[in-house]
Amino acid sequence: MAKKKLASGATKKTAKPRASKKRASRLKGKDTKERIAELARSVVAMAEREQDPAIQIPVRSLSNIAYNEKSRHLEMGDNEQSRSFFNFGQAKRFMQTLLVASKCNDLIDIGKTASIRQIYYLSKHTIKGTKEKTFDDQSESDPIIEDLEVAVDSLREQLHVFASNRGNLAGPITLVDDGNTLDCAAMGSAGYAVPSIVEADVIQFKKCKAKFILHVEKDTVWRRFHEDRFWQEHNCIVSHGGGQPARGMRRLLRRMHEELKLPVFVLLDNDPWGYYIYSVIKHGSINLAYESRRMAVPEAKFIGVSSFDYDRCDMNDDVKIELDANDIKRAKQIANYPWFKNKRPWQKEIKKMISNGFKMEVEAMISKNLSYLTEEYVPMALKNKKLWLD
Amino acid sequence: MAKKKLASGATKKTAKPRASKKRASRLKGKDTKERIAELARSVVAMAEREQDPAIQIPVRSLSNIAYNEKSRHLEMGDNEQSRSFFNFGQAKRFMQTLLVASKCNDLIDIGKTASIRQIYYLSKHTIKGTKEKTFDDQSESDPIIEDLEVAVDSLREQLHVFASNRGNLAGPITLVDDGNTLDCAAMGSAGYAVPSIVEADVIQFKKCKAKFILHVEKDTVWRRFHEDRFWQEHNCIVSHGGGQPARGMRRLLRRMHEELKLPVFVLLDNDPWGYYIYSVIKHGSINLAYESRRMAVPEAKFIGVSSFDYDRCDMNDDVKIELDANDIKRAKQIANYPWFKNKRPWQKEIKKMISNGFKMEVEAMISKNLSYLTEEYVPMALKNKKLWLD
Repeated sequence: MAKKKLASGATKKTAKPRASKKRASRLKGKDTKERIAELARSVVAMAEREQDPAIQIPVRSLSNIAYNEKSRHLEMGDNEQSRSFFNFGQAKRFMQTLLVASKCNDLIDIGKTASIRQIYYLSKHTIKGTKEKTFDDQSESDPIIEDLEVAVDSLREQLHVFASNRGNLAGPITLVDDGNTLDCAAMGSAGYAVPSIVEADVIQFKKCKAKFILHVEKDTVWRRFHEDRFWQEHNCIVSHGGGQPARGMRRLLRRMHEELKLPVFVLLDNDPWGYYIYSVIKHGSINLAYESRRMAVPEAKFIGVSSFDYDRCDMNDDVKIELDANDIKRAKQIANYPWFKNKRPWQKEIKKMISNGFKMEVEAMISKNLSYLTEEYVPMALKNKKLWLD
Repeated sequence: MAKKKLASGATKKTAKPRASKKRASRLKGKDTKERIAELARSVVAMAEREQDPAIQIPVRSLSNIAYNEKSRHLEMGDNEQSRSFFNFGQAKRFMQTLLVASKCNDLIDIGKTASIRQIYYLSKHTIKGTKEKTFDDQSESDPIIEDLEVAVDSLREQLHVFASNRGNLAGPITLVDDGNTLDCAAMGSAGYAVPSIVEADVIQFKKCKAKFILHVEKDTVWRRFHEDRFWQEHNCIVSHGGGQPARGMRRLLRRMHEELKLPVFVLLDNDPWGYYIYSVIKHGSINLAYESRRMAVPEAKFIGVSSFDYDRCDMNDDVKIELDANDIKRAKQIANYPWFKNKRPWQKEIKKMISNGFKMEVEAMISKNLSYLTEEYVPMALKNKKLWLD
């Protein structure tokens, strides 16, 4: 639904993003623990001045999100909301925010991490002398974690909170993960498992001979590339995110792109979902726009599967999957996103899919033969810059 | 629905299993390629004798499944159905079966593997001179793969067909996967990624100091154990399957149990789904009973979370999640499975959950404190044999 709102709002003039300059300057140079401490100190100071203790939380709604044409990622604006203790409607969430902040502070202190579910269980208790619980449901604590992320301008991972891990990679890169030196060219048939937290204190890059990254959508496609030793032949890293990549995978792509200067190429299904995954990798996700600054890879290129490939690659009818009404609606929404709207090649691509009346999966390419994808289609797509969508 | 049928059928006398003795003796000592060749030769021979070519497919319905009380896993009986070429209702599936067999044969020849989706695309084509497609949908080719598995009595993995990979492990075991030697005590923060195919030609065990395996349900729980170095402290392997474990994880558990003589302990949520996951690991899955012989771990022990833990561990109310009508229905079905029906401790366990009126997650245990699960609850559960459910 959030996506829909932005899509329709996209016809309006894009607000000039002034992303979080105030916050950025206030918190600059401080580590996450200091940032949490500062939040706590400001609350204490207000109480000591006999003011209503309050915390400022940047607004995480679409009204406070803009696409920055220069940096090419989604950004949050400067709107903040106050959450105060002596406000009947805000008191509970005020206390919840401080409670979660305190639990994250504990985690940092003991050098451990917790899942969002574990944060919920750690923070949930019945308030003494009442029947009131601090949290009734995880759906209450999850947004509080996100509030805290933006309030102290730290990624969830820096707050020592992890999500499920998903995604694997293989290729000529040696990294240190949790103190273990791992050669990702020799990690077995499922490759290196990308963890949920990939910040520099956990993962360091040691040696990298790869020249680029090929990111594919699904693990079954990844296995095709891994089994055919594509990464060896083409001197690259091949990764997958098991569908829409989780934060760990996205953050790692960004770090490899930024720190190792590796171009990122993306190979996804020719359907609206594939377009959206590309959009998330490149510009950031709409739901968590504030993380884009540290997760998006604005230079990522889409190398396929394109709607024009059916004719260009002389595919047979067996690869066609009919578009349904929802696909068409979704494709039109995506075409209207500000970051697709002014790009003629993308408009042509999406229009072509709608006029084709069908979508195609990456795996359909092997309908020609098992190695067509890895030995012909992708090598050709990588060479032919004209085919890339940016 | 399949589950429901068995549950209601469970009140009848369990048929004496005579699992696949005919097939077993016919195929004994032959590798998968020879088995496919024999299938093909028998079809050719029938054609040459001017008979209606037919193949025999063991029946994969519940009517042909029994629980073997001695081996303690689900088994297929001897019922077979004939699938012949000159039968209007069977001709298409007859041809589809041979087509898929031929594709698997090709995969074995070139030493590559394919996903079930890739098998679908490899096998799908329009029959010359007609508008008829060999397959209209993957829902047609998936059961054909399963038919072929039972017809030639080979696991899907031996037919070079893979599923999605899911699951990780860590601990003092060194294995060779795809030629890479991997020390699973030093595989980084997400551990060793268990692939979909873990047969002996892919994975060999090299060195193992672990004394047992602790298998947990979810990756977030696994991370708690991994971060707390539980496997180091207790000299064991800690694995998870990301929910109901995929075939690769189950097969690996079985191989480690059988070849390395490692006892398997299972830690799951205290809910009907947890009971069912235990049942699948221990006895095999109902939908794919024929694979149980090579995937089930009948000696696996359930160490928690038990319905009695709420009182025994003095948990607070914050861990309770109310049972809904569906939970109660499902719990009663499971209590009626033949392999739970005659076990008093399991009957007590399931009844207690229903009378509690709530379920509990493994992660809820950390409601006491972050390390309660790994430092108190599980060590105590492992020591106290009386608490194990078998």
